[in-house]
Amino acid sequence: MTLEQVSLNQAHGGQQGVWRHQSAETGGTMSFSVFVPPHEEGARLPVLWYLSGLTCTHANVTEKGEFRAACARHGIIFVAPDTSPRGEDVADDDAYDFGKGAGFYVDATQAPWAPHYRMRSYIEQELPALVAQHFPADMARQGITGHSMGGHGALTIALRNPGRFASVSAFAPIVSPMQCPWGHKALGGYLGDDQAAWRGYDAVALIEDGARLPDLLVDQGLADGFLAEQLKTPLLEAACREAGIPATIRMQAGYDHSYYFISSFMAQHVKWHAQRLNQRAG
Amino acid sequence: MTLEQVSLNQAHGGQQGVWRHQSAETGGTMSFSVFVPPHEEGARLPVLWYLSGLTCTHANVTEKGEFRAACARHGIIFVAPDTSPRGEDVADDDAYDFGKGAGFYVDATQAPWAPHYRMRSYIEQELPALVAQHFPADMARQGITGHSMGGHGALTIALRNPGRFASVSAFAPIVSPMQCPWGHKALGGYLGDDQAAWRGYDAVALIEDGARLPDLLVDQGLADGFLAEQLKTPLLEAACREAGIPATIRMQAGYDHSYYFISSFMAQHVKWHAQRLNQRAG
Repeated sequence: MTLEQVSLNQAHGGQQGVWRHQSAETGGTMSFSVFVPPHEEGARLPVLWYLSGLTCTHANVTEKGEFRAACARHGIIFVAPDTSPRGEDVADDDAYDFGKGAGFYVDATQAPWAPHYRMRSYIEQELPALVAQHFPADMARQGITGHSMGGHGALTIALRNPGRFASVSAFAPIVSPMQCPWGHKALGGYLGDDQAAWRGYDAVALIEDGARLPDLLVDQGLADGFLAEQLKTPLLEAACREAGIPATIRMQAGYDHSYYFISSFMAQHVKWHAQRLNQRAG
Repeated sequence: MTLEQVSLNQAHGGQQGVWRHQSAETGGTMSFSVFVPPHEEGARLPVLWYLSGLTCTHANVTEKGEFRAACARHGIIFVAPDTSPRGEDVADDDAYDFGKGAGFYVDATQAPWAPHYRMRSYIEQELPALVAQHFPADMARQGITGHSMGGHGALTIALRNPGRFASVSAFAPIVSPMQCPWGHKALGGYLGDDQAAWRGYDAVALIEDGARLPDLLVDQGLADGFLAEQLKTPLLEAACREAGIPATIRMQAGYDHSYYFISSFMAQHVKWHAQRLNQRAG
């Protein structure tokens, strides 16, 4: 698998790159960004995945996420994928919350989405193999986080892959797409009407069905206009309590859904991941 | 003078705002951003001015500058103005380095620029009065910094206003517009052919003519493609040495001209300003 360099900039003593490649899963060109912190030659570093929210690409967090200082301090590679397949031949929808920019980290089964909308397999299988091949990554030490739709992605991918991630966190995640309008539209459109197929893409349902996380950090702004109708943090809180998952869920007064919120708590999340990733043998 | 709120987001415990107002100096609507860190009610806080480079508005540093964590830690208000007059009736040029987005912090004397291109008076007089009126600012404690064209602005404004700024720094500044193509085009266009008028807008010339700074911090990337032809850091280094200005000028290996460079050293600049600003009586 070959990678094309879109850009490479020195930052915080490391290298912030943007890369492009032909994806077998999504059947088109995909872009993602990778920050590699300063490190000794030959070292293999832990990897933190960041999954972005609706309408985003890799660029939003890369420009506004304020993660590099913390990743440089803790020696962590930060990978930010795109949020959907891209390209002129990829089916789309005029809405911001469906189609391009809104892949919801599922493998679609319905027409016209099924051929390209394979973001689950892309994020779970294809991209990790590419990262392992091209970067100084220790794939035995991975953490995962994300924002909003990407928080949903981080939680569900971690829940479906026990043992793969030493650390899991989220910023303002959609905790139960089965119980909110964004999720009903996306899961119904990509997966069809049978809600049994949705449960593998719903963090609360996965926990109810027995999936577990080692522990969990979530930050959620109380001034976030999507909290009550779409994000529904209390459902995750209740599911974790019921399942005995030690979850640190912090409701942050005054914060909204923007990157001003994410960047305010990013360094704490990176530190939280670093503490767990650096406990595993390097 | 009234201010219109464009946006206000909680960030790093403080408030990141974007504001709009009718400017008497530029004769149109101007936007700028202000970060107010968390503080005790009634407190007056030091102010750090950040002047942006060619093609930028307040938005670039506000989104990519990574200044808020440091400003919150040190209790500093961060103000980011625009780089030129704006509006449909404002003269412009197709080039990126002249006209809108390229005001060079001068008061233009030449047609068709003179009516609106009054960024010197806007930054030195009008905007500080507005900031003093609307924010919890201690105007006895001001620092100034900037990037590229904005580094030129920061240096020249500080040199022309002795005693106003307790702290001065710059990221990859244009140190002598009289000695580079960007500067010749801009100063010639805005001020006319008489180079005597240019000297008040040239940091190296101002120092040669007797202006002084308390001290100075400059970071400059060695992988910056504009260094040799446009920025010419060694000219500033020589002028400071000759004049006895204690200047810390750091040539940073591997860094380019982008916000990846700026954000890498922003926290160090904010700390450097804070050390000086917080020495003055609060």
